[in-house]
Parts: sequence; structure tokens; C-alpha cells
Amino acid sequence: MKARVFVTLKGGVLDPQGKAIHHALDSLGFSGVSDVRQGKLIELELDDAVSDADLDAMCRKLLANTVIENYRIEREAGP
Amino acid sequence: MKARVFVTLKGGVLDPQGKAIHHALDSLGFSGVSDVRQGKLIELELDDAVSDADLDAMCRKLLANTVIENYRIEREAGP
Repeated sequence: MKARVFVTLKGGVLDPQGKAIHHALDSLGFSGVSDVRQGKLIELELDDAVSDADLDAMCRKLLANTVIENYRIEREAGP
Repeated sequence: MKARVFVTLKGGVLDPQGKAIHHALDSLGFSGVSDVRQGKLIELELDDAVSDADLDAMCRKLLANTVIENYRIEREAGP
């Protein structure tokens, strides 16, 4: 079974990577972009025995820094 | 309007970051994880005038390295 974890910076947290991307898009002539934020996408291949609580614990203990980051978990049925 | 770009490594490409996360999860006692891949999530705040073709061009020219990475675009209606 596959799970995806989306880790994004919380609202007030500065995002220099996002700013750099925004600036680079401007330099390349792409207009109409008002903000860019960069986050992480972590794809996990899991046994079916792994519970939602386990997955949540993984996020809180390792995958996301909950002081400055939010996370969202998306599970999908395996192929 | 908001758009999300998901950038993931192509299948055959080594992912040391993912391997490190996998190893760390094992060390923390989380079992049942068979693979971890790390990708990027880029959130863009766009004017409505920005077309799908523009967004695709941004990905190909800057956001993703199409030699080793795949990208997927997801647009959503603004609040």
C-alpha cells in the first residue's frame, strides 16, 4: 500500500527556497505568479499492517518538524 | 488561483534522501516500510490569466529536471 505525506511550511514561516523559485520564474519571463512556497513530498511503500496512527507517529517524530511545518497524509490502495 | 506541482524522481534514479529517511524510520522502530522516495511539492499562487501551457513551461524550464524527474500539475479554484 502506498502513502503520500505532504509537508508544507506553516503560514508565517519564511521560505527562501520559494522566494528563489519565484525570482527565477520572474527572470525567465513568467508573469502572473504572486507567491511560491516549496514543500516536501514523501512517498512511502507500506505493509497493510501499518495503521493510520503509526503513519501519523512517523510524521510527528521524523518526517515533519511540527514547530514550523504542517503535514497531510494521503493513503491509497495498492495496485 | 492555486496550483500545486509534484516533482518526483523517475523510477531508476537513486534516491539517497529517501534511503536516509527509510533507515531513520527503521532506527525509530517503525516496521512495515518497504520503500521511501522523497520528492518536492511546489505551491504556486497564480493569476487566472496563467494558462495550463504556461504552467507546463514553468515545470519544464525550471521546476523539474525532466532528465531524472517526473512532474504532475494540479490546479485548484481559488477561495
